[in-house]
Amino acid sequence: MPDDAAVPTMFDQKLDKLAALAVRVGLNLRPGQEVVMTAPVEALPLVRRIAAHAYQAGATLVTPLIGDDEVALARYRHAGDDAFDTAPGWLFEGMAAAFRGGAARLAVVGEDPTLLAGQDPAKVARANRARSIAYRPALELITSFAINWNLVPASTPGWAREVFPGLPEAEAVARLWDAIFMACRVDQADPVAGWAAHNATLHARTKFLNGKDYAELRYRGPGTDLVIGLADGHLWAGGAEPAKNGIICNPNIPTEEVFTTPHKLRVSGTVRSTKPLAYQGTLIDDIQVRFEEGRIVEAHASRGEDVLRRVLETDEGAARLGEVALVPHSSPISASGLLFRNTLFDENAASHIALGQAYTTCLRDSTGVPMDELAKRGANASLIHIDWMIGSGEIDIDGVTKTGSVEPLMRGGEFVAA
Amino acid sequence: MPDDAAVPTMFDQKLDKLAALAVRVGLNLRPGQEVVMTAPVEALPLVRRIAAHAYQAGATLVTPLIGDDEVALARYRHAGDDAFDTAPGWLFEGMAAAFRGGAARLAVVGEDPTLLAGQDPAKVARANRARSIAYRPALELITSFAINWNLVPASTPGWAREVFPGLPEAEAVARLWDAIFMACRVDQADPVAGWAAHNATLHARTKFLNGKDYAELRYRGPGTDLVIGLADGHLWAGGAEPAKNGIICNPNIPTEEVFTTPHKLRVSGTVRSTKPLAYQGTLIDDIQVRFEEGRIVEAHASRGEDVLRRVLETDEGAARLGEVALVPHSSPISASGLLFRNTLFDENAASHIALGQAYTTCLRDSTGVPMDELAKRGANASLIHIDWMIGSGEIDIDGVTKTGSVEPLMRGGEFVAA
Repeated sequence: MPDDAAVPTMFDQKLDKLAALAVRVGLNLRPGQEVVMTAPVEALPLVRRIAAHAYQAGATLVTPLIGDDEVALARYRHAGDDAFDTAPGWLFEGMAAAFRGGAARLAVVGEDPTLLAGQDPAKVARANRARSIAYRPALELITSFAINWNLVPASTPGWAREVFPGLPEAEAVARLWDAIFMACRVDQADPVAGWAAHNATLHARTKFLNGKDYAELRYRGPGTDLVIGLADGHLWAGGAEPAKNGIICNPNIPTEEVFTTPHKLRVSGTVRSTKPLAYQGTLIDDIQVRFEEGRIVEAHASRGEDVLRRVLETDEGAARLGEVALVPHSSPISASGLLFRNTLFDENAASHIALGQAYTTCLRDSTGVPMDELAKRGANASLIHIDWMIGSGEIDIDGVTKTGSVEPLMRGGEFVAA
Repeated sequence: MPDDAAVPTMFDQKLDKLAALAVRVGLNLRPGQEVVMTAPVEALPLVRRIAAHAYQAGATLVTPLIGDDEVALARYRHAGDDAFDTAPGWLFEGMAAAFRGGAARLAVVGEDPTLLAGQDPAKVARANRARSIAYRPALELITSFAINWNLVPASTPGWAREVFPGLPEAEAVARLWDAIFMACRVDQADPVAGWAAHNATLHARTKFLNGKDYAELRYRGPGTDLVIGLADGHLWAGGAEPAKNGIICNPNIPTEEVFTTPHKLRVSGTVRSTKPLAYQGTLIDDIQVRFEEGRIVEAHASRGEDVLRRVLETDEGAARLGEVALVPHSSPISASGLLFRNTLFDENAASHIALGQAYTTCLRDSTGVPMDELAKRGANASLIHIDWMIGSGEIDIDGVTKTGSVEPLMRGGEFVAA
């Protein structure tokens, strides 16, 4: 019979497994690499375990850059108006230098999704803009997959409060940890082996779908009757992938999706969202849109419709699709039934589509090809990329081959092929 | 009558005063400056208050770089042997870039003096060396006083344990906070005004001593009969001083000393230490040395004598003096009767001398003059700079003018002139 003392021990074991997973599977850290790790201060117990595993894996140096919400808020509470166009460029340039020098990048994710909700939106926007510009050199090394990198979650009071509103803080934090451990598959005896199997499943799925090279996908379900044409020469991706430094890593833990690039002109029909979309502090719920020739021509939502409309008007590409992703309804995140209000989780909870910018890496022979050329194959361009969930246990999806034959792909939210 | 609830409130008030002091007196922060702040994670409550005061004073951005002892120890516990020559040069270069861009530098000091005591000394030495080399560009901007900077203390469990061995952790931390508040003069109604008065006292003292331009100082006390010749063209310094960016700041909080450069060839007689010297994890106690023509020719200690001898053999300059500093015996730090095992405190607890490298800024017209020339005036050169206490309530000091007249300077450890 477990006694009280056993409870932290079981928790500690899971925390340690999550840390090992981030280092061995997420980063697949190689001996001699430095690790540059960002994390909220509440994640310090996980940070310490990640440092231990990184050194065991041969890291020369682990440098944690610890963030604190109170220090971030102090600026909005006390700084003058002219403070909000400044960003720590010196730090971000340093991080970029570390990446160019061979460092791996680990981000422990546990943001309070509503931290800045009460602050002046104009100041938030200016600070975000300054930060985005200053961070660009470092971010480009990550988005271009120049280095091995990983996002791994940690439960924090600010985040847990949003996922479990109404629960006492300590209980909410504990419940979110449980959900994280389940979603990250660390509640198994050997999570590293579990992730090898999971990556194999995702790779088998992308291989199957790339072999099929479907012309389009057809979705049917409550409120949904949609055809998504796929880009010419699209490629499905998912799970572990090789970075340009040759290291095969899992950039996201958890991950459940396989995803590719739709054709921006070949989407038609109606689709209904199956989970609320948390967008910059606003919940947009019951989205219902109609596509004609790839473009959304009608859009409704039971909540946040004005925000949705503003999003769609961002630019020409904002009302077209840039990503289509398939996630089984039985995935652990979906099974939790929770809305995490964090992209790392919510985009892996269900099959989804994304408005806006396409991933050019999901097109064959795309390296060095100008965006104009890729656009002719169907790749969409936009300033935004917003994922929203359209999968559930009631969705059927067919693949349509180039010769027009229709093949069942998913039934009741589960893969029947692939 | 104070109730329990008043205790944390009084502590919070003092913590807030210490934060205000670091920003307003320590840095004398100017509107539009960034702040780059290093701190141990245990000092987070102070870090948050410093951030608030810095933003109130017009900071555009406060970037805390939070250190954690457990992460630091993880390297020694788990890393391979080849890890210890790596330092975060990318981060230090970033800090140097921030300083060159106008940022102020604040360091919250609370190190556990024995953190690495159990680790392989060879690895510690290699890591320190790599760190020193990588940090040099940033450190030079601090030591050359190019920017306004400040060290301010925070009580941490690791440090408090060493100052109050045997006390329960929480009590030790609270006692060390009390000692810090007293030493930093924040247990006054208006510490900022208190520091203005304190700086005025120190400045009057340096002005008096610089006016006297003594040829030598003569020390008498138990075990001490010492003559220290001062360097030709020596300058006394102490308290707030202008950085090269024009901002008058107090680099150290607390500070009690006025100090100058002795003549490396003109020290003779015997001197006994009055407090133990904490040197790299070793306590050296009851130091008794004899000088001839500026050089230590005989050295004893009741404890740590072997370490003392090794220090003196570091190089030619290690057995000669590089600094002489005067601190009244009634200073708050001395009055506490504590051994802090931290230079920021212990060197301000009593009159002291330092073996090794001289401060060239304590010589008139020294800017741009090569070290060879400054050596002719008496400035010592060495890889080391180690302060040790020779002051107490039983020490008398006379100043000897260039014409040979002998004037009482300190009696029973207190200034009678200056």
